[in-house]
Amino acid sequence: MSGSSFGTLFQVTTWGESHGPGVGVVIDGCPAGISLTEKDIQTFLDRRKPGQSKYTTKRNESDTVEILSGVFEGRTTGTPISLMVRNQDQRSRDYGDIAVSYRPGHADFCFREKYGFRDYRGGGRSSGRETIGRVAAGAVASLLLKELGISVCAYTKSIGPYTIDEKDYDFNTINQNPLYMPDQTIAEKAGQYLSDLMADCDSSGGMIECIASGLPVGLGEPVFNKLDALLSHAIMSIGAVKGVEIGDGFAVSHSVGSTNNDPFCIRDGKTVKKTNHSGGTLGGMSDGSDLILRAAVKPTPSIAATQHTVNEAGEEIDISIHGRHDPVIVPRAVVVVEAMTALTLADLLLCNTVSTIDKIKKVYEED
Amino acid sequence: MSGSSFGTLFQVTTWGESHGPGVGVVIDGCPAGISLTEKDIQTFLDRRKPGQSKYTTKRNESDTVEILSGVFEGRTTGTPISLMVRNQDQRSRDYGDIAVSYRPGHADFCFREKYGFRDYRGGGRSSGRETIGRVAAGAVASLLLKELGISVCAYTKSIGPYTIDEKDYDFNTINQNPLYMPDQTIAEKAGQYLSDLMADCDSSGGMIECIASGLPVGLGEPVFNKLDALLSHAIMSIGAVKGVEIGDGFAVSHSVGSTNNDPFCIRDGKTVKKTNHSGGTLGGMSDGSDLILRAAVKPTPSIAATQHTVNEAGEEIDISIHGRHDPVIVPRAVVVVEAMTALTLADLLLCNTVSTIDKIKKVYEED
Amino acid sequence: MSGSSFGTLFQVTTWGESHGPGVGVVIDGCPAGISLTEKDIQTFLDRRKPGQSKYTTKRNESDTVEILSGVFEGRTTGTPISLMVRNQDQRSRDYGDIAVSYRPGHADFCFREKYGFRDYRGGGRSSGRETIGRVAAGAVASLLLKELGISVCAYTKSIGPYTIDEKDYDFNTINQNPLYMPDQTIAEKAGQYLSDLMADCDSSGGMIECIASGLPVGLGEPVFNKLDALLSHAIMSIGAVKGVEIGDGFAVSHSVGSTNNDPFCIRDGKTVKKTNHSGGTLGGMSDGSDLILRAAVKPTPSIAATQHTVNEAGEEIDISIHGRHDPVIVPRAVVVVEAMTALTLADLLLCNTVSTIDKIKKVYEED
Amino acid sequence: MSGSSFGTLFQVTTWGESHGPGVGVVIDGCPAGISLTEKDIQTFLDRRKPGQSKYTTKRNESDTVEILSGVFEGRTTGTPISLMVRNQDQRSRDYGDIAVSYRPGHADFCFREKYGFRDYRGGGRSSGRETIGRVAAGAVASLLLKELGISVCAYTKSIGPYTIDEKDYDFNTINQNPLYMPDQTIAEKAGQYLSDLMADCDSSGGMIECIASGLPVGLGEPVFNKLDALLSHAIMSIGAVKGVEIGDGFAVSHSVGSTNNDPFCIRDGKTVKKTNHSGGTLGGMSDGSDLILRAAVKPTPSIAATQHTVNEAGEEIDISIHGRHDPVIVPRAVVVVEAMTALTLADLLLCNTVSTIDKIKKVYEED
Repeated sequence: MSGSSFGTLFQVTTWGESHGPGVGVVIDGCPAGISLTEKDIQTFLDRRKPGQSKYTTKRNESDTVEILSGVFEGRTTGTPISLMVRNQDQRSRDYGDIAVSYRPGHADFCFREKYGFRDYRGGGRSSGRETIGRVAAGAVASLLLKELGISVCAYTKSIGPYTIDEKDYDFNTINQNPLYMPDQTIAEKAGQYLSDLMADCDSSGGMIECIASGLPVGLGEPVFNKLDALLSHAIMSIGAVKGVEIGDGFAVSHSVGSTNNDPFCIRDGKTVKKTNHSGGTLGGMSDGSDLILRAAVKPTPSIAATQHTVNEAGEEIDISIHGRHDPVIVPRAVVVVEAMTALTLADLLLCNTVSTIDKIKKVYEED
Repeated sequence: MSGSSFGTLFQVTTWGESHGPGVGVVIDGCPAGISLTEKDIQTFLDRRKPGQSKYTTKRNESDTVEILSGVFEGRTTGTPISLMVRNQDQRSRDYGDIAVSYRPGHADFCFREKYGFRDYRGGGRSSGRETIGRVAAGAVASLLLKELGISVCAYTKSIGPYTIDEKDYDFNTINQNPLYMPDQTIAEKAGQYLSDLMADCDSSGGMIECIASGLPVGLGEPVFNKLDALLSHAIMSIGAVKGVEIGDGFAVSHSVGSTNNDPFCIRDGKTVKKTNHSGGTLGGMSDGSDLILRAAVKPTPSIAATQHTVNEAGEEIDISIHGRHDPVIVPRAVVVVEAMTALTLADLLLCNTVSTIDKIKKVYEED
Repeated sequence: MSGSSFGTLFQVTTWGESHGPGVGVVIDGCPAGISLTEKDIQTFLDRRKPGQSKYTTKRNESDTVEILSGVFEGRTTGTPISLMVRNQDQRSRDYGDIAVSYRPGHADFCFREKYGFRDYRGGGRSSGRETIGRVAAGAVASLLLKELGISVCAYTKSIGPYTIDEKDYDFNTINQNPLYMPDQTIAEKAGQYLSDLMADCDSSGGMIECIASGLPVGLGEPVFNKLDALLSHAIMSIGAVKGVEIGDGFAVSHSVGSTNNDPFCIRDGKTVKKTNHSGGTLGGMSDGSDLILRAAVKPTPSIAATQHTVNEAGEEIDISIHGRHDPVIVPRAVVVVEAMTALTLADLLLCNTVSTIDKIKKVYEED
Repeated sequence: MSGSSFGTLFQVTTWGESHGPGVGVVIDGCPAGISLTEKDIQTFLDRRKPGQSKYTTKRNESDTVEILSGVFEGRTTGTPISLMVRNQDQRSRDYGDIAVSYRPGHADFCFREKYGFRDYRGGGRSSGRETIGRVAAGAVASLLLKELGISVCAYTKSIGPYTIDEKDYDFNTINQNPLYMPDQTIAEKAGQYLSDLMADCDSSGGMIECIASGLPVGLGEPVFNKLDALLSHAIMSIGAVKGVEIGDGFAVSHSVGSTNNDPFCIRDGKTVKKTNHSGGTLGGMSDGSDLILRAAVKPTPSIAATQHTVNEAGEEIDISIHGRHDPVIVPRAVVVVEAMTALTLADLLLCNTVSTIDKIKKVYEED
């Protein structure tokens, strides 16, 4: 129960505050022999970098990653991979009210009650910058998955009322709009919606979907560590996520068994499912179909509109939060959802390699 | 990553198959000095016992629990509490097709692929009987929570199209209808709906809600082990659950910041939230409001209607699953959701006791 | 940090007190497909059963094990294996002084201080009967190791002043004397020594050695989870063990580098060590030579001689401990040392299967 | 089972190689509110810094620590503390034979077999520089212990044949000789012994002892996580340690119960032990006496004398290891033993705070 670690055999530990010297992550347990350079990681980090569109904070950070250990001659060595990004734009300023007030929708009050005092500069550990470590580690996990033929892809499913229907997905457009939506037309409407909200000093929620393809059958543990359970843990650990679902998700509550069950059939000599209401898991294990999950993301709590709250002295006050904040968290959280999914799958793949004595013999006998 | 264990300091490990000698759980880490008898546990187990209404399987089990260790003179000793329920109605029968076929919506195929072979009697580890261990442990966790003034209550929020609105809740009725719904009228309609489905050899999904009151502020860890994340892990580890949400949950995706943020105010000299869109957590920590979560439960996959599937020989076949199955999983899963919530909270309470040096001193200095 | 669990992927959890209904263990994570019967386990349990010679307690227990889960048609299924032994001879008696006194060399005082009260019947969790769960689990681990060509063998190295020199080992004699010593002559002398101590109402310490052969090279993790460290954890967790050493152990403190280093050479085309001062580990990883460890076991603290102590009322008193106690713990602890070594190795083998991407591919690609 | 992490609630993760950019550690779970500066940590690091006497390597490193996170306004915040030391003297050189040979007594061969290839520069993760992270974290753990009135002190018990008897200890001298021995006269003799060995291109082993005072009674878990077991794990995870013992340790194997048992008595109204053969633990829990442990350290394997070995091509060769190596590891390992002891105790203190429901109530009710 260390709060900043995730995983069993592929274990990541993130560290760092938004206004300290930097943020980073240590990956312990990455198998040896995977090709890895700083560029591989930077590609992922750039997807969550601030200042890339009018919908993201203007904070000026290059977010350049440094590999501090665990790689030798371009390959992972099997020892801990330490990655660090120095904070640059730790704008010195007067935190004023914020330093002693509890911002609505933020963790300020809880931090104060839990730890007795708090780092009031930016969000501390609850800052979006904490996700840099997750994304950097997710990049490494993705390389591991790629070696095994597994791909993970996340994108924006909806922003406010603008939801994209599965039948309209055009995956080629995901990186062609700043909202990472797989439908260019809806992306434009959602953009206008966000611009209107910004004018109103307000913010929007949305939904992220993630698909993983190429998983072996049987990934996940039958009881407490079901694939669904570990993924939910991972995704719900992202700040601002308030719901997670697999496959048909909440829609199953209105469904009936004869519809919801996916029939098995034979295709190209293999046992596969005809439909995928289950979203790729049965009994907590991967079932060979694509893994599909969705996360509900709340509106950015930091808004310029005046809000009622309480300060540390116990007085009710009004505050208005100025500064550098995104009108929607969703687009920058897309790569975080992808990273957390990759981290969960990478760890499970390592842990599940040894499910039968025959598989273990295969490794040790040829050794 | 042991699949059948849950928790860090308050750790439970369940064991047992539906058609083996019995099922059980070991609770390791329960603090000493809590009053505990078999009756305390039996009360919880009776809530998930089969054969109590026309909506539950006719399997005949008394589910009588035996305390095998960890209790002395009526109190927990601090050492492992081992609890066991013997299986009684392990009806000997010809499993026929089922033994070599993959039932749609079941884990049969995944078990076979993961482990090389499978226990085809009933659901093995994926059987609902596995939850006996969870519920027995949850009873102990609930006693621990009660000592600290915390209560947990779960109930059926919806069955198929019959959803109960929050404003209509009447908690007194929960135990007065076999569906555990907090609205007697809707419970009756839902009951009729289930009877109709049974006549059609079909089954229904539904939703469970759970509320925890009396939590201290600050429970949960800021990054990977957020209260939300641990609860999602716990709830999604229950078979048939396909979605989980906290507070407004998926509705936040359509919300705006000015509405979704809960303003703070002072009531009776204490800092509290005016509203509870967050469902009792901020930044992954409990915020002093009621904790509210919901789980989406899929329709029972075992239905008498004919279904298309594949057998172990790789042939496409039609099967119809006879036997003892509930037309809806929801009512019997209510106590499981409550148990998993209690287990998560109990573990977090133990782990979070030591968040500041002052709290630690308080215990050791008076020691 | 649950006190009664051990291992990461091959995780065991023991439960039970000496005077409760029974003792047992849950093994979670044992790979599927290993042939396992109750007889396989009973063979191990019989080696620690009481009442087999004049040097062991007269407590009358058959220690018959029951497999409660995890085995189907004679093979492990990959799900938790629950094993139980019912206590039979829970002789009802007046604990008198013992119930309220702190026996020297026992955990009574610590239990009382830690938990506020204690189960004063027998040793509670500190009883030797707790090791039944360890030995039962060790039997399963040994079967797993055997499938991979690894054998583990423990025996008594010394009792009091009677130490067997390595050059005199005759492994055939280990099971031919009640002290499990690999030298019949010394076993007889040690036996006489114990008889004399019994006459004096006293007890003896001794040393256990354990050898594991057939390990692959590279088992163990370079930093905190060195093979040496995990084994030391395992062995020192056995009650009464006060020291552990690997290879030359404490003798290295008097050694010099030119002597202590084991030169490498080529034998039959393989890189091997000429000598084995290291005891089979280098840098915390297995080095291909036999793994050799030793444990120092303290004299049985329960002795009939009068001892000075304190009772719970805070009064100094004299006590004499009557009852059923071994004059030496060593012979019955031999199989416990073997079991703990096997458990450690089995867990490491599972965890270390995935040290390189090539090994992982080997399993998943042929899947 | 991540190899580079240690601890459950107070969890440390070290990273870094001897010849990479740097080494470091992340401490996750340190309670909030402890006063901490870089100077507090530097004091510990300086005790293991190279180049301080003729008995330590001439490698030129300032080992200056940087706090990267987790501290705000001079106090720990409860979030991860990231500490880093940049490597400075990564002397670029031709590794020649060493790069492709297996040095006797080193982990080269095992790394190669385990990971498929290895970082041949210096010792990689097996380098003594890895301990910088341990010592930095140990400094933080020591501050936590100090807040609770617990002190930990390690020193050199013996070097080669020069052992200091307990009755001759003069703790004031520990920091007055470069060997950290509590007896100035023996320190001088040991120094001469080392000088002679250096002239012979050889090295010496030795023994380190560590004492912890002020522990509460009941620290440690009765079964697998005994105080003794966790300490042994910690100490044996230090490179070059081949044996560990608590209290009388291996001497108990020659002892008898009547001598080895420590009688309880009343002193100043408190229950205490008259003697301390047990070294401060009973039944795996702290017993209120000083905790005493010893570690056996092997001679430095890197010696200038010619040694026989094998290279990666499978050829037998002779090598002589030049470079910067200590003739004895013991003095610089003293602070590492102290650090690992402190880390173990700090983690246990956090985990054991919640052993009874009354202790938990004490924290939550006044909250």
